[in-house]
Amino acid sequence: MEGLKRYIREIPDWPKPGILFYDITTLIKDPVGLHHCVDALANYYVGRLIDRVVGVEARGFIFAPMVAYRLNAGFVPVRKPKKLPAETTKVSYSLEYGEDALEMHRDAITLGQEVLIIDDLLATGGTAAAVAQLVESQGGHVAGLGFVVELDFLKGREKLTKYKVHSLLHYDK
Amino acid sequence: MEGLKRYIREIPDWPKPGILFYDITTLIKDPVGLHHCVDALANYYVGRLIDRVVGVEARGFIFAPMVAYRLNAGFVPVRKPKKLPAETTKVSYSLEYGEDALEMHRDAITLGQEVLIIDDLLATGGTAAAVAQLVESQGGHVAGLGFVVELDFLKGREKLTKYKVHSLLHYDK
Repeated sequence: MEGLKRYIREIPDWPKPGILFYDITTLIKDPVGLHHCVDALANYYVGRLIDRVVGVEARGFIFAPMVAYRLNAGFVPVRKPKKLPAETTKVSYSLEYGEDALEMHRDAITLGQEVLIIDDLLATGGTAAAVAQLVESQGGHVAGLGFVVELDFLKGREKLTKYKVHSLLHYDK
Repeated sequence: MEGLKRYIREIPDWPKPGILFYDITTLIKDPVGLHHCVDALANYYVGRLIDRVVGVEARGFIFAPMVAYRLNAGFVPVRKPKKLPAETTKVSYSLEYGEDALEMHRDAITLGQEVLIIDDLLATGGTAAAVAQLVESQGGHVAGLGFVVELDFLKGREKLTKYKVHSLLHYDK
């Protein structure tokens, strides 16, 4: 999978000075990059029945539905508060500074369903842990979490020790 | 395709009083609904070479990448200003009240590429026309625009007469 790294564009000082940003848009604009990436995320779960794939707005909306399509599962969006039109379940979580919240439709996941969480990036793990909590609050079983890029040095995995975590690309700085 | 309508949830008075909202989350959480919908969007273009599929944040990010995957194309995100990390092209367009703007990476589409624009909803057509303008400003050829839901009574199609427009589901009110 490390070969996929050549499709990732590294952008220094974005979104703020001192941060090196791994830009996945150069990966997904390429048909070969897109296909390899989605298949690698999905193939890890082939042979297991996955009912729902969950993705978080906005970049998670790019990858999670493609994995859902590939695995013949349904897709469930997790959004910022007040964006979803029907009744929701909400979770609040801490950020570097302050708090944020995410919502999922209350009828999106039912008891005992196998749910995969897919996102572009595993950084500090706060968002991923919050999404897993949303899934479980609706009676879903978190079958795993899959990421395109994992920033190992931020130790997000330590917030997700209860779960199976699979990332395609690892970066140490 | 009209059979897909039974997967769409109708929500009165959302996001504001007097609006009937067509909720696609109930369509895409269902594996069969998701697959039928994506295949119907994509199959319309099978046999034509499509280089890139463009989608607009946030709900367009759900459908456009799946169609890109299905057609072996690349995916290009169009985002609100200052969200994309590299050099962008920007387009401003009028809303019901005020203005909005969208951006696309400058290197996302190259001269002569065949580009499909996919979104969940064709309403007044303002966003779709702006995205088509972005594609053309980079030398791309708009092969077509595909939508899951078209609100016929808003006449968005009249802003897109230069293009081939294909919607799966039509609503008259």
